[in-house]
Amino acid sequence: MPADNIHPFDKLFQPASIAVIGASSSASGTGWVKRLQDFGYPGKIYPVNPKADEIQGHKTYANICDIPFPVDYAILNIPAAATPQAMRDCAVKGIQFVHCYTAGFNESGTTAGKQLETELAQIARESGIRLLGPNCMGIYCPGSGLTFSEDFPKEKGSVAFVAQSGAEASRLVLLCQDVNLYFSKVVSYGNAADLDETDFLEYLASDNDTDIIGLYIEGVKNGPRFMSAVKKCMKKKPVVIMKAGLTENGAAAAISHTGSFTGSQKVWQAFFRQTGAIPTQTIDEVADTIQGLTRTRKLRGRRIALIGRGGGIGVVASDICNRAGLLVPSFSAETRQQLAQIRPDPGASISNPVEPKLGMEGAGEFYLRGLPIVDADTETDVILIQMAVDIYGGHTTDLLPGLSEAAYALCAAADSLKKPVAVALFTGGHTDTILAAAAARDILTKAGIAVFTGVESAASAISKVYGYYNFSKF
Amino acid sequence: MPADNIHPFDKLFQPASIAVIGASSSASGTGWVKRLQDFGYPGKIYPVNPKADEIQGHKTYANICDIPFPVDYAILNIPAAATPQAMRDCAVKGIQFVHCYTAGFNESGTTAGKQLETELAQIARESGIRLLGPNCMGIYCPGSGLTFSEDFPKEKGSVAFVAQSGAEASRLVLLCQDVNLYFSKVVSYGNAADLDETDFLEYLASDNDTDIIGLYIEGVKNGPRFMSAVKKCMKKKPVVIMKAGLTENGAAAAISHTGSFTGSQKVWQAFFRQTGAIPTQTIDEVADTIQGLTRTRKLRGRRIALIGRGGGIGVVASDICNRAGLLVPSFSAETRQQLAQIRPDPGASISNPVEPKLGMEGAGEFYLRGLPIVDADTETDVILIQMAVDIYGGHTTDLLPGLSEAAYALCAAADSLKKPVAVALFTGGHTDTILAAAAARDILTKAGIAVFTGVESAASAISKVYGYYNFSKF
Repeated sequence: MPADNIHPFDKLFQPASIAVIGASSSASGTGWVKRLQDFGYPGKIYPVNPKADEIQGHKTYANICDIPFPVDYAILNIPAAATPQAMRDCAVKGIQFVHCYTAGFNESGTTAGKQLETELAQIARESGIRLLGPNCMGIYCPGSGLTFSEDFPKEKGSVAFVAQSGAEASRLVLLCQDVNLYFSKVVSYGNAADLDETDFLEYLASDNDTDIIGLYIEGVKNGPRFMSAVKKCMKKKPVVIMKAGLTENGAAAAISHTGSFTGSQKVWQAFFRQTGAIPTQTIDEVADTIQGLTRTRKLRGRRIALIGRGGGIGVVASDICNRAGLLVPSFSAETRQQLAQIRPDPGASISNPVEPKLGMEGAGEFYLRGLPIVDADTETDVILIQMAVDIYGGHTTDLLPGLSEAAYALCAAADSLKKPVAVALFTGGHTDTILAAAAARDILTKAGIAVFTGVESAASAISKVYGYYNFSKF
Repeated sequence: MPADNIHPFDKLFQPASIAVIGASSSASGTGWVKRLQDFGYPGKIYPVNPKADEIQGHKTYANICDIPFPVDYAILNIPAAATPQAMRDCAVKGIQFVHCYTAGFNESGTTAGKQLETELAQIARESGIRLLGPNCMGIYCPGSGLTFSEDFPKEKGSVAFVAQSGAEASRLVLLCQDVNLYFSKVVSYGNAADLDETDFLEYLASDNDTDIIGLYIEGVKNGPRFMSAVKKCMKKKPVVIMKAGLTENGAAAAISHTGSFTGSQKVWQAFFRQTGAIPTQTIDEVADTIQGLTRTRKLRGRRIALIGRGGGIGVVASDICNRAGLLVPSFSAETRQQLAQIRPDPGASISNPVEPKLGMEGAGEFYLRGLPIVDADTETDVILIQMAVDIYGGHTTDLLPGLSEAAYALCAAADSLKKPVAVALFTGGHTDTILAAAAARDILTKAGIAVFTGVESAASAISKVYGYYNFSKF
């Protein structure tokens, strides 16, 4: 790789060695050292703790300057008051990247906290250290063995997420794992005393491992630079943004969370209009949008074909799709004629929405015979299948065989379809139903079929994907 | 009970005998006879089927007129074309209530179907039979052993639901069962050739077994009579209405579902304003609203106190509450001072939202010590606790013990609180997490604490409950 393709952040995401300053010496073995080790981080780990000689089998140093080897990255897990001196030690040691996990800075609202954060930022500026945080979870990069949670999957993917909230970032990683979607890089950057969302956006725009970028932001410090970074990204890949703190009470909460000023709704509406970035309001919506972008790529229009049992369910689904900006037109006469041949029962709709046969086994048969007919329909662009396992699965019977059969039939049928196909898998709250549905979800998502928890989330995601492709045309 | 307190519908909901016309003689034993029997219907069941002598142990008759005993209620499960003659036979037999399960009438869009429905309605009018349907699931009344699904619970409750969609009614019953909420009476009335939503509303207004009324409607035939029935109900109990088919495509789907004309959005908006009935758009929302009405009765204002770990989660929750019409004010200085004593960690918010300690065990401790403080706060009216089991439970560890302990602690603390308290229990999609969360949900809901799947559904339900009490004041 030519030298000009190497970005300084490559070392942040793939450090060859990490010092954990304030490594936990507790016998229970929680903490950063154990976490990195268990996650399979392949580089060198140097615990720093003046009260221990060895932590988790690693020689432990009293001070970072005592480490006789080069260190790429340091994690600060010490009281806030001690962090400036640790940063100065890192500067002496020549460390390029420091992640300050510790809280108690701007977000505390105290004068002491604010002074400490100013001091950290100043040391960073003067020494050339790039500082992540303070008050953040840091980096999750499964490709290089970095994580901030022992619960995260080791699988690599192509989604990047940059978040001011570690909790919301964690939620997204786990929600995506549930539907077999994985990440290239996740950054929780907290108070953003130095490195911020824009730094990471600029990097991710050219990151070949990343196809989709997500952001959770409370405040942005440099609006014009942020906007130009988003535009740069949008030329190459979609950017999904969850802007938190846009209501009065949300803005107040953001100040005590990350000390951020959140900006006005009007400004942000204009921002979304101009950049084409995809706006979302909850992490579930971010996960759904990412799934839609990944798995309904072939989407070319917003006319949706609905397949699912239950007349009332079809009415409600049509309402929901309309409200989300999608259209539910009638199928062409030819399509209806062909569907009538495989659905001759009285009371079953063969228009749009169309009802498959009774039971989940009957559904499978319909997917194989009916989906190619709907795929050929000239009036619709995308297919949404409602699997109402909650009511048609039955609480009291073993639903797994029938449901799995239906899921496999759908995978087989979907392979040769020209239109994108997505599934709304209703599970309700009954544990038997949920377990069977989870197995079906796994079969479907591993085959690359988008699975949503309901028509609302499916319609919203499909509408956002359509909006993205529509914006990209101009 | 004095005679004037007996309503003719009492026999519809508590028939002493039922004839199943077109009873299934299949050895697999599905069908209405088996369903009623298994559900514990205590009255007489008379199968009618000219091709069988005995079905499920019951003597079977060739024609309903052959039954030598009185029959209160008949279920028609025969081809549409045969239903007029069966209705005439029922008239001869002197049966008062007939449920026509069969489809293939107005909703089919065919001339033959429409003629058949007109004929059924005419026979009903002339004979005095009250007809339920056609094209519907009929009645679920656990108190009298009636059901249209083998999956429904046998427990009685105080919620009534009247629905033009059997599927959506089923979904509601199962969703409510998941949170230990049960029904007095559920009616799926389909095409409403005779009995309609207004007939049932008028009955339920004075039904002592019913405290809350829900409706799923596509179309209403007599607007003024419907409105007056809703107003009559609202004087005594809340009415939650899911009006389907309010979008263009939803309206089209409703015509092919129940042959209903759905009416304009403007008319319905005016209806909701005038009656104070609670509008909902999905069955999940109906279930959430019913839970809110049942379990946050003490609600006196719309200022919400948020409790839950994760700064970003608090920001997002504040946004969601604001958007739902709730306020998230700061706690009083006294409240904050008291919370600071039990939450001294840096980075933890003691304002509103307030963060309990780490882990679910720490949460339990906070509920016992912190909830009484928040309950005494003068600036808030209702408490919402976020249990983010998805991220703080941990995917890889056994969460059940800690989570159950937290749930029991919350039940113990909630008992003595003056403010209503509700829980947003985030589970994500991981099966281990879901199973542990389901156990916690069961503990909490059995203790009468409302449990929602997220802040969005909780805030929406609380806002609707507030709207109901606020309307009732005038």
